[in-house]
Amino acid sequence: MKIKILTTGGTIDKIYFDAKSEYQVGDPGIIEILKEANVNIDYDVETILRKDSLNLTDEDRGLIHSRVKSEPCERILVTHGTDTMIQTANCLQDIQGKIIVLTGSMQPARLRISDAAFNIGCTVIALQLLKPGVYIVMNGRVHNPAEIHKNVDENRFEITTR
Amino acid sequence: MKIKILTTGGTIDKIYFDAKSEYQVGDPGIIEILKEANVNIDYDVETILRKDSLNLTDEDRGLIHSRVKSEPCERILVTHGTDTMIQTANCLQDIQGKIIVLTGSMQPARLRISDAAFNIGCTVIALQLLKPGVYIVMNGRVHNPAEIHKNVDENRFEITTR
Amino acid sequence: MKIKILTTGGTIDKIYFDAKSEYQVGDPGIIEILKEANVNIDYDVETILRKDSLNLTDEDRGLIHSRVKSEPCERILVTHGTDTMIQTANCLQDIQGKIIVLTGSMQPARLRISDAAFNIGCTVIALQLLKPGVYIVMNGRVHNPAEIHKNVDENRFEITTR
Amino acid sequence: MKIKILTTGGTIDKIYFDAKSEYQVGDPGIIEILKEANVNIDYDVETILRKDSLNLTDEDRGLIHSRVKSEPCERILVTHGTDTMIQTANCLQDIQGKIIVLTGSMQPARLRISDAAFNIGCTVIALQLLKPGVYIVMNGRVHNPAEIHKNVDENRFEITTR
Repeated sequence: MKIKILTTGGTIDKIYFDAKSEYQVGDPGIIEILKEANVNIDYDVETILRKDSLNLTDEDRGLIHSRVKSEPCERILVTHGTDTMIQTANCLQDIQGKIIVLTGSMQPARLRISDAAFNIGCTVIALQLLKPGVYIVMNGRVHNPAEIHKNVDENRFEITTR
Repeated sequence: MKIKILTTGGTIDKIYFDAKSEYQVGDPGIIEILKEANVNIDYDVETILRKDSLNLTDEDRGLIHSRVKSEPCERILVTHGTDTMIQTANCLQDIQGKIIVLTGSMQPARLRISDAAFNIGCTVIALQLLKPGVYIVMNGRVHNPAEIHKNVDENRFEITTR
Repeated sequence: MKIKILTTGGTIDKIYFDAKSEYQVGDPGIIEILKEANVNIDYDVETILRKDSLNLTDEDRGLIHSRVKSEPCERILVTHGTDTMIQTANCLQDIQGKIIVLTGSMQPARLRISDAAFNIGCTVIALQLLKPGVYIVMNGRVHNPAEIHKNVDENRFEITTR
Repeated sequence: MKIKILTTGGTIDKIYFDAKSEYQVGDPGIIEILKEANVNIDYDVETILRKDSLNLTDEDRGLIHSRVKSEPCERILVTHGTDTMIQTANCLQDIQGKIIVLTGSMQPARLRISDAAFNIGCTVIALQLLKPGVYIVMNGRVHNPAEIHKNVDENRFEITTR
């Protein structure tokens, strides 16, 4: 059982903003989280982007798509900013035969109070139990990207009612 | 989708020991963790024991068994000390038609560095994706209690090789 | 013994940056820190600015000066960004008869790893033991603002050697 | 400017209690705290005891006394459990020509919420500004050990009124 982890930035990896520097995304918080959890799984972390997801371009999404598609590992976790996570998930829908899960966090992993470790935990199990497809795992749920939206006021993903 | 959470004590809920008092287990850490994760699921937390799992008696295990068995909710999470988690899981094997997951942590939830939030995240998803049975979710894996042991030196659960 | 606390922003109060919003400074971290320390002193916290100190204008420094000068309390703590803390301290040098201490932090108070609580502790004691004057308390030392500079590479204040 | 730090145990260094082991005191939390604060002072940490202060014997206090007395450094910080901190401070009153400060914490340094870093900050400055004598620095105040008691209900040190 192996998991390939691709990090793209987003709140989960944010460090505090400083007026001297431009927008800052730090080293992937997931590395520390998996170490602290002493996980008994084989994984590999690779940083492919370090961006607030609002700033992701079509080219960036192209890069994510090509990396996920060409990845030999069957189970792929993509950490991503929450603001455009659904959009990126939609871009990946044509990739067959892989379990692709996107997650992130509403509060940076470095904060004393954060949802990051919980969300990563959710995702690691989802990757082992789901069948191939593209999923968003946030707020304790496995979501079909086509059926959810981010409720900005409540700061969480919710199922869209029609 | 509803989850019933029964807390029994263990390291996850430990607070520091004080020579004036006897052994101390605090309020369930899972409450804070689920709040911080802003989960979009229906759950209910009930404290049934507050013990180091090394001190659990047959009577205590009888109590856990009867509470799990009589619980109308189909998905049940039991937080538990790691030292005798396997033993308790074995006791629950005769209960049919329910998804029963035990978890805990190697470091208390109140510490700056802890595996508690990660483990709870793992468990919340496992409860939604597994079929009825009794499972131990620790170190990023879903385990059959009959196939694992706690490796005390490595401070984690591992699959027993024969 | 009473301490008046004026907060002006800076890293100590920073929350993570979000591309949707402009630069963000949160509620003063000092409130939480003093509560957690259960201090046995009388204090009052007032937010007068919420800025990265690199963005402070002459007008902002004029405001800080007038608030410190008109403050009836003899002991005044100013939390401030570290990048221009020395400059603001210099502006306050003409104020007589008050113990004025500036502090801040290199890492936000909300992070799991931060120097904020340590620095506030240092400052609270300095305010009680120093004679009137303007001081910068950072990195475990009481500094004369005229004698130090911020070593950006080492991320700390150091005494300037000539 | 040099500070000698002697650690004796107490809540500040406590780790969670485990029924398998006896009472547990971990490595001194002050090491991590001073590193995180990036202090610009010369210091040396030495562990002389690892005990809950309720368990300190006359012999233990004799050891603390002899180590403080024979220590060539003029400024000495003793980290100590809060329950008998006053008693130990009283034992050290005959030592002349040294600035001796005792501190500790009500919550372990390893917890997400703790007064440890704040108290250490207070103490580091007190050691630099006080004249020779024996002091207890807790809850944001410099105390004469003869004039205070620990208010167990409020979980803090207070000045004894007569």
